[in-house]
Amino acid sequence: MTAPARDRPRVAVVGASGYAGAELARLLARHPGVRLTALGADSSAGKRPEELYPALRGLGLPTYAKLGAAELAAEADVAFLALPHTESLAVVPRLLEAGLKVVDLSGDFRLGDASQYEAFYRHAHDRPDLLKEAVYGLPEIHGARVAGARLVSNPGCYTTTAILALYPLLKAGLLRPEALVIDAKSGVSGYGRKLSSFNQFCEVDGNFIAYKVAGSHQHIPEIEQELSAAAGTRLTVTFTPHLLPLNRGIFATSYGLAAPGADEAALQACLADFYAGRPFVRALRGAEMPSLRSVVGTNLIEIAARLDARAGRVVVFSATDNLVKGAAGQAVQNMNLMLGLPEEAGLDLSALPV
Amino acid sequence: MTAPARDRPRVAVVGASGYAGAELARLLARHPGVRLTALGADSSAGKRPEELYPALRGLGLPTYAKLGAAELAAEADVAFLALPHTESLAVVPRLLEAGLKVVDLSGDFRLGDASQYEAFYRHAHDRPDLLKEAVYGLPEIHGARVAGARLVSNPGCYTTTAILALYPLLKAGLLRPEALVIDAKSGVSGYGRKLSSFNQFCEVDGNFIAYKVAGSHQHIPEIEQELSAAAGTRLTVTFTPHLLPLNRGIFATSYGLAAPGADEAALQACLADFYAGRPFVRALRGAEMPSLRSVVGTNLIEIAARLDARAGRVVVFSATDNLVKGAAGQAVQNMNLMLGLPEEAGLDLSALPV
Amino acid sequence: MTAPARDRPRVAVVGASGYAGAELARLLARHPGVRLTALGADSSAGKRPEELYPALRGLGLPTYAKLGAAELAAEADVAFLALPHTESLAVVPRLLEAGLKVVDLSGDFRLGDASQYEAFYRHAHDRPDLLKEAVYGLPEIHGARVAGARLVSNPGCYTTTAILALYPLLKAGLLRPEALVIDAKSGVSGYGRKLSSFNQFCEVDGNFIAYKVAGSHQHIPEIEQELSAAAGTRLTVTFTPHLLPLNRGIFATSYGLAAPGADEAALQACLADFYAGRPFVRALRGAEMPSLRSVVGTNLIEIAARLDARAGRVVVFSATDNLVKGAAGQAVQNMNLMLGLPEEAGLDLSALPV
Amino acid sequence: MTAPARDRPRVAVVGASGYAGAELARLLARHPGVRLTALGADSSAGKRPEELYPALRGLGLPTYAKLGAAELAAEADVAFLALPHTESLAVVPRLLEAGLKVVDLSGDFRLGDASQYEAFYRHAHDRPDLLKEAVYGLPEIHGARVAGARLVSNPGCYTTTAILALYPLLKAGLLRPEALVIDAKSGVSGYGRKLSSFNQFCEVDGNFIAYKVAGSHQHIPEIEQELSAAAGTRLTVTFTPHLLPLNRGIFATSYGLAAPGADEAALQACLADFYAGRPFVRALRGAEMPSLRSVVGTNLIEIAARLDARAGRVVVFSATDNLVKGAAGQAVQNMNLMLGLPEEAGLDLSALPV
Repeated sequence: MTAPARDRPRVAVVGASGYAGAELARLLARHPGVRLTALGADSSAGKRPEELYPALRGLGLPTYAKLGAAELAAEADVAFLALPHTESLAVVPRLLEAGLKVVDLSGDFRLGDASQYEAFYRHAHDRPDLLKEAVYGLPEIHGARVAGARLVSNPGCYTTTAILALYPLLKAGLLRPEALVIDAKSGVSGYGRKLSSFNQFCEVDGNFIAYKVAGSHQHIPEIEQELSAAAGTRLTVTFTPHLLPLNRGIFATSYGLAAPGADEAALQACLADFYAGRPFVRALRGAEMPSLRSVVGTNLIEIAARLDARAGRVVVFSATDNLVKGAAGQAVQNMNLMLGLPEEAGLDLSALPV
Repeated sequence: MTAPARDRPRVAVVGASGYAGAELARLLARHPGVRLTALGADSSAGKRPEELYPALRGLGLPTYAKLGAAELAAEADVAFLALPHTESLAVVPRLLEAGLKVVDLSGDFRLGDASQYEAFYRHAHDRPDLLKEAVYGLPEIHGARVAGARLVSNPGCYTTTAILALYPLLKAGLLRPEALVIDAKSGVSGYGRKLSSFNQFCEVDGNFIAYKVAGSHQHIPEIEQELSAAAGTRLTVTFTPHLLPLNRGIFATSYGLAAPGADEAALQACLADFYAGRPFVRALRGAEMPSLRSVVGTNLIEIAARLDARAGRVVVFSATDNLVKGAAGQAVQNMNLMLGLPEEAGLDLSALPV
Repeated sequence: MTAPARDRPRVAVVGASGYAGAELARLLARHPGVRLTALGADSSAGKRPEELYPALRGLGLPTYAKLGAAELAAEADVAFLALPHTESLAVVPRLLEAGLKVVDLSGDFRLGDASQYEAFYRHAHDRPDLLKEAVYGLPEIHGARVAGARLVSNPGCYTTTAILALYPLLKAGLLRPEALVIDAKSGVSGYGRKLSSFNQFCEVDGNFIAYKVAGSHQHIPEIEQELSAAAGTRLTVTFTPHLLPLNRGIFATSYGLAAPGADEAALQACLADFYAGRPFVRALRGAEMPSLRSVVGTNLIEIAARLDARAGRVVVFSATDNLVKGAAGQAVQNMNLMLGLPEEAGLDLSALPV
Repeated sequence: MTAPARDRPRVAVVGASGYAGAELARLLARHPGVRLTALGADSSAGKRPEELYPALRGLGLPTYAKLGAAELAAEADVAFLALPHTESLAVVPRLLEAGLKVVDLSGDFRLGDASQYEAFYRHAHDRPDLLKEAVYGLPEIHGARVAGARLVSNPGCYTTTAILALYPLLKAGLLRPEALVIDAKSGVSGYGRKLSSFNQFCEVDGNFIAYKVAGSHQHIPEIEQELSAAAGTRLTVTFTPHLLPLNRGIFATSYGLAAPGADEAALQACLADFYAGRPFVRALRGAEMPSLRSVVGTNLIEIAARLDARAGRVVVFSATDNLVKGAAGQAVQNMNLMLGLPEEAGLDLSALPV
């Protein structure tokens, strides 16, 4: 990490004008182990990032530019893709051929089973080979494979928050796999910067809604893929996303049936053991509970497992910043592993007390 | 309703300086069928309501005063009690003896089974006779009994929002009773006006938390009491309250297992039939969904039932204004029935489009 | 007001799909003295208003339709125009010719001096005759002329809030005209429903900005027109608009130099006297101060004048709901006067205490 | 800064359980040049900081303890005092005697003229000697004196935001001193953590008010003290504080009369020149404007000067995070200078893009 800037790996962000791209720019501009060389953005090409995001003033960022695969190959060793859905499909192969390492933040390479794309994304997927190669970038679960990957598919925000909460409990057999309900609440930045009545201030402020209900959200197959692997059986979840009137943060409340012997101490110990030594997971104990306040602005996830003994039901609470651990921060964490840098490099962030 | 003001029944509010009391004052000051004669408040006695709530300027409200049972008996035909928990226990018997009708907004008379007070409120209940007499004031379910009651126990805000969503489906056998999960989110006014770090702006804004988790919230026995009656069997629910960064509104997302044959059309038809003609229930159809925006400021509840066919699970969404349908508005609705006034009197409220 | 619905004047709203249009729909649907017959909207034609605004459910509103002058002439006696700037210019003459009364909510007819359109709106104005005929619809100042008008130009939201605060003090000579500063803060709904990064939730929440600074906002000439009339001399104001992270409300803090003898009692008495008997103005006394909370949802303006004796400066605070007294409510108030209905008809609204 | 932790100066915070204290704890725990040894708090003594502020989890902070002057002398080389008003008066002399350096965040030592305490704080001040010794801790203005001080009086949040905006323009004679108006808007954290209806969520959210109006706010004499020094003449300001519905940030809009020749370019150049090389001041150019978003979480102030040529008036916009540049961050900046550390040490913070 003390290499002079000119000797550090060069990184570029494509789709840099969106929210995840802006967060990547913030993190990478201050990262001690890499050098941010280019920010790709089509419709904003030629603009300065601080014109779109005044909070990025003073970071010395590159001007937005149209970046094709050739420019990326010339300017970067690692590329982050924060493109709209399906746009990565064409770009990733060319970058890999040019020898770049790629962290893709879209859903385009997250599902191992191509048929799921037809069910949840309404299109066929023509690169099952890359689906097979891509490593699902949850470092707390797949860290070893991430370290050796050319292509990491960065998980979704809801996904990260739900999977990390439930994976250890399913794997340990403390949670039964057959009746999982995940009730998730997201801040508005999860929707991104595209203009829509959905993210207009007057629609959201003072309001609360559910959306993409009844099993229709595209993050469901990711969640089921990972949790099925944990449980060792094909499971189905009921997942409901809601929209919170705040900028950042996902809070998931997940419900399942307790396996025999799964008391609260066992549940909490399971999480603490599974995540022992992991820098970005806070497995809470006793009556401690997650809050958005304590994770916003950081790459942390907070998780607390509780038992509703009257109903024999496990309730797991988890919280992340959807733009950091749910997107840009986790992408940097994956890059750190891919480049052999310390996992925390550039991610030494603190939450505001109020 | 066209009676001259002097001939209308006289009503008083005790505990009028809290949020529910302030909302009662607003509604009763404009009610065409009654006359608001007194606002009881101990620590604020002598103050004008608009000193605490500038939005109450111009309504011609009485000054807050210390009101004992004797004063109430002299000044009112109907008393609304919005007192802290356990304080109604001593007041209600004296008001009933004095011949008043009483709508109690606390939890003191909501549970038919006195033993539940020990489990959830941590005190014994010494008036099982009044628990038996008190009518649980959900007019859409117990309206006929409300009309003849001396004492109506006004349901809690979470309670109203959850019970009205699930009651018809359980009663019709479309929802199985054994695995109900209610994930509820409330605005801050549900906590009331008492000073606490829990409702400080800097704690709440931009934040989201769960509280009283794992089967500990005092509204649980109310919900189980009513839903067990609907299902015809003793059932247990898992209920989790959360705190939304907004002033008003409760949104409940309730999950249960679909009974055989319970498709989405059947679920929605069941709700629509059960609530046909009820002025304050919107049983939504098709893809319409509840939102806080469309109920805040009104006595409405919006309910939508959906089927997650992949998981065989029914998801019911419901929304209310916790201070209106969840407290003051429902109390006025109960009073209207008790006095033989039109059920909607004084409750012709509209929500703001943005 | 007790006329059967079929005998009431028919009213239509054009540009009904925007925020001011939605608020007009809400108010007119419940107005006891008129009949809402049509809602004009081009791009949303064919949609139900509740598809855009769920809070409008249950009001029995007409479906949005494309309405030309001919349709309006056939269906309405009064038309409200809530169109984008310059679009009223072509419509108003045709409606007047067809015999309709018109309340125009745009800026197209607010300025008596056509040259100001070139300075602040960057286009020439080709109907000085209509500028002359149009009555500036501040009923508290021009009520008598409004009553006889065919065309009322409804003032802007900032404008109403600023003018009503300062007009009486300038007219009485208590405030010197030469150094007025108006620092105004508006909720996001003042920007309207058009999609823009300006009104995206993530841009606004937790943020605060000034915009159209240094004498560039198009409401300035309106303010100067009316205040110059009050002062009897041509005056210039410094006006700065800011964006508040909330939906509704304008709060203006206006500064000027006290004339000799202008003590706080005299300032407050001046306002109280000027607005005596006016139903929608609260001229506050003593230490009472305006708040957005106490006006949002109502057609009220609250005004308080204070003296900074150290600096010899008058500070006047005023607050309105920008969509009601600043737009739709004032438009209905103007219509009431134009139709000879009670000024308060349909405007008996109350603010929420919290 | 690369000294081993045990050789670094030891610092303690007294009054550490309040908001400024929590922010100090966050900053000092991560500061590379000092060692945080103690957090003083009376009513919270024995609690862990993360019990009050979950966002402080994981920082390895000391437990809150009651700290008298003796304990402080034993455990610290530098003390930060974040105590309620007047409480520093007794503590500071004892700490100075014990040889500590002190940064006091209260108003107790900010005014050089003791008589102002009677006017604005309603008590006499009995240590004019310390008022004389204390250095007013605005490093951009008094940095040289700060470096040699034993006692630094850290400026108020409104004060910092207003003075840094106007000082250079007054000093350069571009702004006339006789008619300054400062209209300031603050987030709720400026009020602190004490329980009050003033900072309850339901009072603040969706609301906007002014308070301590008409020349009564206690920050006025500080502002006048510094700006009078800049102008070379005794001046009086009109200052109005308002409460924004958000957690952090102060935005000040300041108005004054332009001196002859003060065009916009000259105003902006004056600010840029005055603050050239200062790490925490962004003097904006052209049409760039400050926003809370771009300073919250950082020790930055953004300033933009504009000319309202129509009115001959200068308008200066400035924005800070009231808990960082307006309190804890500036205190750390002062400490850095007092200890001979780099001015930016521990203050390398970035704002969130959304």
